[in-house]
Amino acid sequence: MASFEEFKRANQQYAAGFDKGDLVTPPARKVAVVTCMDARLHPEAFLGLELGDAHVIRNAGGRVSEDAIRSLVISERLLGTEEIVVIHHTDCGMLTFSNEDLAAKIREDLGVDASGRDFLPFSDLEGGVREDVETIRASELIPDDIEVHGAVYDVKTGELREVV
Amino acid sequence: MASFEEFKRANQQYAAGFDKGDLVTPPARKVAVVTCMDARLHPEAFLGLELGDAHVIRNAGGRVSEDAIRSLVISERLLGTEEIVVIHHTDCGMLTFSNEDLAAKIREDLGVDASGRDFLPFSDLEGGVREDVETIRASELIPDDIEVHGAVYDVKTGELREVV
Repeated sequence: MASFEEFKRANQQYAAGFDKGDLVTPPARKVAVVTCMDARLHPEAFLGLELGDAHVIRNAGGRVSEDAIRSLVISERLLGTEEIVVIHHTDCGMLTFSNEDLAAKIREDLGVDASGRDFLPFSDLEGGVREDVETIRASELIPDDIEVHGAVYDVKTGELREVV
Repeated sequence: MASFEEFKRANQQYAAGFDKGDLVTPPARKVAVVTCMDARLHPEAFLGLELGDAHVIRNAGGRVSEDAIRSLVISERLLGTEEIVVIHHTDCGMLTFSNEDLAAKIREDLGVDASGRDFLPFSDLEGGVREDVETIRASELIPDDIEVHGAVYDVKTGELREVV
């Protein structure tokens, strides 16, 4: 069965027990999290988030891409968040390839030329966190009074470790 | 107390009970979800996802931005996913402003000129889902054998409704 069919079935159970329909749009804890799409990360669970608490932005690597900046600006300017936490994780797929590797795979699989595209891989776990925190701090669209933290989540132990 | 301090405290409890350290990187259910950063959405909960099941990509609106395509290509080409589900939601903040509105707010708050930037707002909930599904289907980087679905999540009822 396709996952979407399973999702619809699982959602019927969730909706049957749902009682949080009165929450407002701005996050109650005024914080936005930027983290990886990795399937082994359930940020709400490992950060203790209740429904309505925090914006959660996720992409391959948890990178502070231009699109993450777009989301953060909307989060802060329109929805009142005042703190950002960037979380990368151990055993991340983004540590295992280069842009050239992926472009070669795309050429082989799809016959498409993706050379010159930046898929934002990184070679150093803590260095990637520091780089992304620095990108936020350097952005003219993110004011200096926004608190920014960086951390690493360990997929083997479930532990969050502060980096910056 | 800053949220990051609360996160570290909550995480100690999570890690103390953590027993899923043996999961592999590729998502067990071979599916990637694209959805909104909204604090009222806990996708793992409303879709019935276990740790390790699915990639979850989130940004303001759950839009299929260039960065979402980057993440989807990595998900499919390097980590074996074969299905994509795009989920927008009712009462989305992205339905409430225009690029001009946000640029004016940024100018007022930060003194920065953000005119000309596209923050990807949309005016029609189901139309936005259809547009993002179409963007995926039209991308030369996403092959035609990837199954793509679109749905709307209702923040008042917890229900997921299929759109396309």
